[in-house]
Amino acid sequence: MSRHVLALCGGVGGAKLAAGLARAIAPGDLSIVVNTGDDFVHLGLHVSPDIDTVAYTLAGLSDRERGWGIAGETWAFMASLRRLGGEDWFQLGDQDLAMHVERTRRLSEGQALSTVTAALTRALGIDHAIIPMSDDPVATIVQTDDGELSFQHYFVRDQCRPVANGIRFEGAAAAKPSPGFEAALARDDLATVILCPSNPYLSIDPILAIPGVRGALEDLDAPIVAISPIIGGRAVKGPTAKLMVEMGLEPGVTAIAEHYRGLLDGLVVDPEDSEAAEALHVATLAIPNLLNSDEDRLRVAQASLAFAEALAQKRRAER
Amino acid sequence: MSRHVLALCGGVGGAKLAAGLARAIAPGDLSIVVNTGDDFVHLGLHVSPDIDTVAYTLAGLSDRERGWGIAGETWAFMASLRRLGGEDWFQLGDQDLAMHVERTRRLSEGQALSTVTAALTRALGIDHAIIPMSDDPVATIVQTDDGELSFQHYFVRDQCRPVANGIRFEGAAAAKPSPGFEAALARDDLATVILCPSNPYLSIDPILAIPGVRGALEDLDAPIVAISPIIGGRAVKGPTAKLMVEMGLEPGVTAIAEHYRGLLDGLVVDPEDSEAAEALHVATLAIPNLLNSDEDRLRVAQASLAFAEALAQKRRAER
Repeated sequence: MSRHVLALCGGVGGAKLAAGLARAIAPGDLSIVVNTGDDFVHLGLHVSPDIDTVAYTLAGLSDRERGWGIAGETWAFMASLRRLGGEDWFQLGDQDLAMHVERTRRLSEGQALSTVTAALTRALGIDHAIIPMSDDPVATIVQTDDGELSFQHYFVRDQCRPVANGIRFEGAAAAKPSPGFEAALARDDLATVILCPSNPYLSIDPILAIPGVRGALEDLDAPIVAISPIIGGRAVKGPTAKLMVEMGLEPGVTAIAEHYRGLLDGLVVDPEDSEAAEALHVATLAIPNLLNSDEDRLRVAQASLAFAEALAQKRRAER
Repeated sequence: MSRHVLALCGGVGGAKLAAGLARAIAPGDLSIVVNTGDDFVHLGLHVSPDIDTVAYTLAGLSDRERGWGIAGETWAFMASLRRLGGEDWFQLGDQDLAMHVERTRRLSEGQALSTVTAALTRALGIDHAIIPMSDDPVATIVQTDDGELSFQHYFVRDQCRPVANGIRFEGAAAAKPSPGFEAALARDDLATVILCPSNPYLSIDPILAIPGVRGALEDLDAPIVAISPIIGGRAVKGPTAKLMVEMGLEPGVTAIAEHYRGLLDGLVVDPEDSEAAEALHVATLAIPNLLNSDEDRLRVAQASLAFAEALAQKRRAER
């Protein structure tokens, strides 16, 4: 019986649903593929923000109030770095720093990012597979009215203030899916693909930009279900809505469904968007989809999986 | 008038006297040249233990009870690294880590260690010049009955347990004195050279092993005065005495004076060693030379400088 679930995700919103999926699904039955387009080298350290957000969230370490990083984090390193005149626009907590130092050390030994990620997430007590989208470097570049900005400069240093007019994924054309991602796409027992409620343009598109990925997803028998990162025209978190406006799109579930056209079988929306959802070209499920509590995460994960299973049954019945 | 002072020093003991010298001497009149034979790359970071010890001591940041590192240091990074299965035998405090990260970043940009050290120590509020002995890599290797060990493996990881039978300085033959060191040696107004109470074999010898340094010191008009790191046959701190025994030397001021033969004009000893000092081939000054309080450090620094000045006057009178 098909039961493997492949989840594609990016940062905070995606990590919350991934945590729900991890509660709903046994470790061997879930592959969580994470965007690495936000990765960058900072102070000589290889930082993988989305991988770490997913890892900290699944390990139960993430700070729910601040919305990123580790709960109970301390900042002695940053204070000391500031005193030394170092670059301090990107906050690196004392605990968090160990991930970057150990990741960088292992990468410099020649280990692949997948291998390093598997080792570090296991060390955090995570049994589910957290898989970088690629072991090759891909860098999300935001094209703005102020010129091109690397993702972290746009997102963190400049707080998304520059007006975006495009996005490109440097290195994507030459990147291969990581072995774990490729294996998940090729599984006989792949039942469902979940596109987590991450920014479609900044977090999911880099994954889809890797040659072969979009085609492989389109060819799957398994249904592809996205959870909308937009509720009532507003992004739950981050710059999704602002970015959509700047790119000439109306923030809403219609634009999200349109963006994933050709890929998507179902879209999970908030009841606030039920009316807009009626006109979509894909099946929709309307459920409250804020993901703050563990219960909400599990509930939305289970509902999304059931929705996908219903779509799969319908597809089988139609054959 | 000659008044510039050149101090050669290593770790904790040397740093204490350097702090006393810095209280006694105006910034422009003191060059503190520091051993870099203990430097090593750990977790991908360039760690300069002796430079940092001198810097933290002069900045008033050092932890006097623990004897190394920064007072009020926190260890969240280490705990997190340990959880990730990283190498944890070398303690890197959260504040301390910023020095290594920022140093490594600047070195990787192509800055010389001297330049980086000047910038970082200035940022810590230090007005006196802390000068690495060389911008070229030199690595102190301890030859032991268990084989060769890099200094930090011998000193920290193995806690000086292996029995030493020799010491060599890898890279020293190809190293040049740093520009600041070379300039200090060539000053017209050089009045005194102080060999701080550091381990002669592990902390001062690497400096003397750089081609040209020993010859330049021997040719100086300025008197060279050492402060004994041995009091009553015991090392004030660290493995000096144990190392001397293993190398067939009797720990004491006699062996120290002998070790510096040809270089030394005067040796500052503790009153406990007055009797042994009488038989030495160099002039001696007996004063209590523990360096724990700021007052002791200033007192020993001033006494050593006065002793050197007296030796210089005597030398001038004898001409």
